[in-house]
Amino acid sequence: MEKINLDLVHELIIDVPDFPKPGIVFKDITPVLANSEAFHQLTDALSELVPQGTQKLVAIESRGFILGSAVAHKRNIGMALARKPGKLPRAHFKKEYTLEYGTDELQLHKDDIKPGEKVCIIDDVLATGGTAQAVEDLVQQAGAELLGHAFIMEIDFLKGRNKLKHNVLSLMSV
Amino acid sequence: MEKINLDLVHELIIDVPDFPKPGIVFKDITPVLANSEAFHQLTDALSELVPQGTQKLVAIESRGFILGSAVAHKRNIGMALARKPGKLPRAHFKKEYTLEYGTDELQLHKDDIKPGEKVCIIDDVLATGGTAQAVEDLVQQAGAELLGHAFIMEIDFLKGRNKLKHNVLSLMSV
Repeated sequence: MEKINLDLVHELIIDVPDFPKPGIVFKDITPVLANSEAFHQLTDALSELVPQGTQKLVAIESRGFILGSAVAHKRNIGMALARKPGKLPRAHFKKEYTLEYGTDELQLHKDDIKPGEKVCIIDDVLATGGTAQAVEDLVQQAGAELLGHAFIMEIDFLKGRNKLKHNVLSLMSV
Repeated sequence: MEKINLDLVHELIIDVPDFPKPGIVFKDITPVLANSEAFHQLTDALSELVPQGTQKLVAIESRGFILGSAVAHKRNIGMALARKPGKLPRAHFKKEYTLEYGTDELQLHKDDIKPGEKVCIIDDVLATGGTAQAVEDLVQQAGAELLGHAFIMEIDFLKGRNKLKHNVLSLMSV
């Protein structure tokens, strides 16, 4: 596998301090999306990161949707959406998870993933891992086989990967 | 231009009555995304719908992100995000718009679109047109040249296109 040059992607990601709240450094990928060359580099690299044999991506709302869609198209596979409550109109699995303050929930349509299907979860950043852990649970409820998680970036000091049961793949660590 | 067969896309879109509230029929495209063949048909058709010369897509949160990303990748162009408040971390244009009850707002990063750039707005469904109209305003604030709107589907009786100043392109009408 040829190593894809991600210099432009690295260069374009912007650190925004104190967003969405004081003390947090937000990794803003929107300049990467707006640059066609960088967006292509990113999609190509993520596409290679997603394990061989993956039959479906599970994309996490909402930046995961952007990455999942381009990668699903390139890999010629389908995509299921892990969404916030109130967005999926039909029968779904759900999983509540804990945030710093309070709880949130993610949902997955029951008919979007078949039992035994080989899936990979995709999102932009692995931080504390709470969201990705909830999606692991949704995939398990669906009876699918989880091959791993694909991220652009992993924030090492938050140790999110320690929460996850499955293979964590990321293009960069910070 | 060869006409792309959208039979499978038509077949897989599910009408969900009374969602998100009584009297509304929700057009659920998630089964299309989950089917790689249908998803490819849809992306190919939308990609042909986006006007020649388009340099950037403006994708509307959040189903527009899914469509915009695959089409931007296929067309080899960049993408800007029109997002709900609190999501974009840096300097942005904003536009408030009226919903049936109350108001909402969309935002666009100021540096995601250049003045004079040729752009196309992309979303899944054109209903009353309020959201698309707000994004027209954002594009205007950015000083870009709007070539049109690309939708999967237009709900004719709601007459959303009458609200819009620019070319409305859609793959199907209901």
